[in-house]
Amino acid sequence: LDKDAIQQATQRQQQLTKPAGSLGRLEEIAIRLAGIQGTPIPKIQRRDVIVMAADHGVTREGVSAYPAEVTPQMVLNFLSGGAAINALARQAEAAVSIVDVGVATELHHPQLIERKIALGSANMVEGPALTSEQLFKAIQVGFDVLDEIAHQGSDLVAIGEMGIGNTTAASAISATLLQQPVEALTGYGTGINEQQRQHKIQVLQRAVQQNQPDPHDPLDVLAKVGGLEIAALTGVVIAAAAHRIPVLIDGFISSSAALIACALQPRITDYLFAGHASVEPGHRLILAQLGLTPLLSLDMRLGEGTGAVLAMHILEAALRTHREMATFADAGVSERTENT
Amino acid sequence: LDKDAIQQATQRQQQLTKPAGSLGRLEEIAIRLAGIQGTPIPKIQRRDVIVMAADHGVTREGVSAYPAEVTPQMVLNFLSGGAAINALARQAEAAVSIVDVGVATELHHPQLIERKIALGSANMVEGPALTSEQLFKAIQVGFDVLDEIAHQGSDLVAIGEMGIGNTTAASAISATLLQQPVEALTGYGTGINEQQRQHKIQVLQRAVQQNQPDPHDPLDVLAKVGGLEIAALTGVVIAAAAHRIPVLIDGFISSSAALIACALQPRITDYLFAGHASVEPGHRLILAQLGLTPLLSLDMRLGEGTGAVLAMHILEAALRTHREMATFADAGVSERTENT
Repeated sequence: LDKDAIQQATQRQQQLTKPAGSLGRLEEIAIRLAGIQGTPIPKIQRRDVIVMAADHGVTREGVSAYPAEVTPQMVLNFLSGGAAINALARQAEAAVSIVDVGVATELHHPQLIERKIALGSANMVEGPALTSEQLFKAIQVGFDVLDEIAHQGSDLVAIGEMGIGNTTAASAISATLLQQPVEALTGYGTGINEQQRQHKIQVLQRAVQQNQPDPHDPLDVLAKVGGLEIAALTGVVIAAAAHRIPVLIDGFISSSAALIACALQPRITDYLFAGHASVEPGHRLILAQLGLTPLLSLDMRLGEGTGAVLAMHILEAALRTHREMATFADAGVSERTENT
Repeated sequence: LDKDAIQQATQRQQQLTKPAGSLGRLEEIAIRLAGIQGTPIPKIQRRDVIVMAADHGVTREGVSAYPAEVTPQMVLNFLSGGAAINALARQAEAAVSIVDVGVATELHHPQLIERKIALGSANMVEGPALTSEQLFKAIQVGFDVLDEIAHQGSDLVAIGEMGIGNTTAASAISATLLQQPVEALTGYGTGINEQQRQHKIQVLQRAVQQNQPDPHDPLDVLAKVGGLEIAALTGVVIAAAAHRIPVLIDGFISSSAALIACALQPRITDYLFAGHASVEPGHRLILAQLGLTPLLSLDMRLGEGTGAVLAMHILEAALRTHREMATFADAGVSERTENT
């Protein structure tokens, strides 16, 4: 991050017509964005949300409340503008990119970014979810999609995902990297009951036992118990940091991709903002590990990038106040009484 | 609230293409707004923020980090568009109404709503802050300003305030109504230190001792230890509920006005949304009493209506998803697997 820009932005915050610190986290956001953009008065003009979609072989173990066919159905819903992410992206004036990186159905649509690597991942209970070749191809999809968006001048990227079964992958990844028991990071996903959650925990234990992912090798974890959309999002996060574009992460699954990226290169956290706190119990643990505090906490657990896009308004508020407010000198407002 | 509209909105939420409940508090907001507007698919077209400004005689006791002259200076800053509330209102496309209900300086400006009742309140340490006549005039200002905004078609009102010394009034009001010791509801205001906070607590204890406000008579409390802008905001809240217009309350001071309004008529809480959780310790206690959970928690403590206006984006997100999302049937998306 640009230390000069951070210092100048910090000074500006102290001169604006408000008690120092009274805008709380908005001030911190503006200052960090100054450091990311390398300018004392940063600005966000183009906003994007990237939704990576893929299927998961582990759904054959009955880990989700919804059938796997919902993945392609929801991709088509995204493309026709009928999902929550579409409504929230319209509100935030964010462009939506939908990427098929591994949906288990043939899908074609003029607005779909068609980068299918496989018809879903393999069942992690029986062996690695991804081959090494699939893993690197999926990360490359993330690089390519982010590069294209960066080329178009994006200033802020939110990440989201669609993939029935992907909270199972996120639990396996985060339990391994955080070296926690899987039950501590296993929630109710799209809405399973407690009995089904116990089954999901057993499936996860079998997957970890079968694959023995190495907690000190993030790419090994990603291949063995991850998924194609999570790998692609890992690529997006890495590439965004390389382009100095801030990333808003969403819930449990997109945060597991960020966890992998930051395990590979810890300085990437400088570019990350946590959009919201999901209801999934593992999410809180990932954010604590990354040192991120969520901007919103609205009991959401939808994914798609919804919590991340909703938080774009908070980032914009931070920049609006930072840029548009008058200083004490400009407005002729008295500063603090002495000795206080 | 309209029970039919609430029931229809609840049904609609269950048909939208997302796991039931996965939009968390956004779903609750959309459903309550349906009940307020009396329509299953509510809409917010015109947004307003009302900022009431007045001075406080108690500032002569040295309770604030800023001199009283900052009140008129900040009012002029609001009118020239240079304050935080202006930047946030532009972002939220909310109209700003600035009302002088008792600033201790002559103020004239074409955009200022000039309804000055007195040159500030009296010093509550020496006797009642307001006479009965001043109290009712101030509440009437709130009625009048809200009636005018309602007449112009407002669908959502945020309330804010400006008045050096007004956290002292808010502490006295809320400590009395919640029957708590003043120290539990006394914070650092615009930025006093701990020694000054102890002095502020002593001033508050003297004011309560001197006036003996009756905790069972909200208007007695408002007159004796309140202030002109807090009384005017109480009027705004009462009138908004009467017009079935939802109100976003802001921080500690505007919440103390809402506390008075709800003590007079408990059903008013149906129309209230808590924009954010202020750093002021008394704010949390007021919201708990009102049964409101703040939408945002960003460590802000500025007032002016900033936290309330920032939360407008959350209400809009609730309505956008509720209105614009496809249903499972429309989008051809499968619902849950059975037995889950």
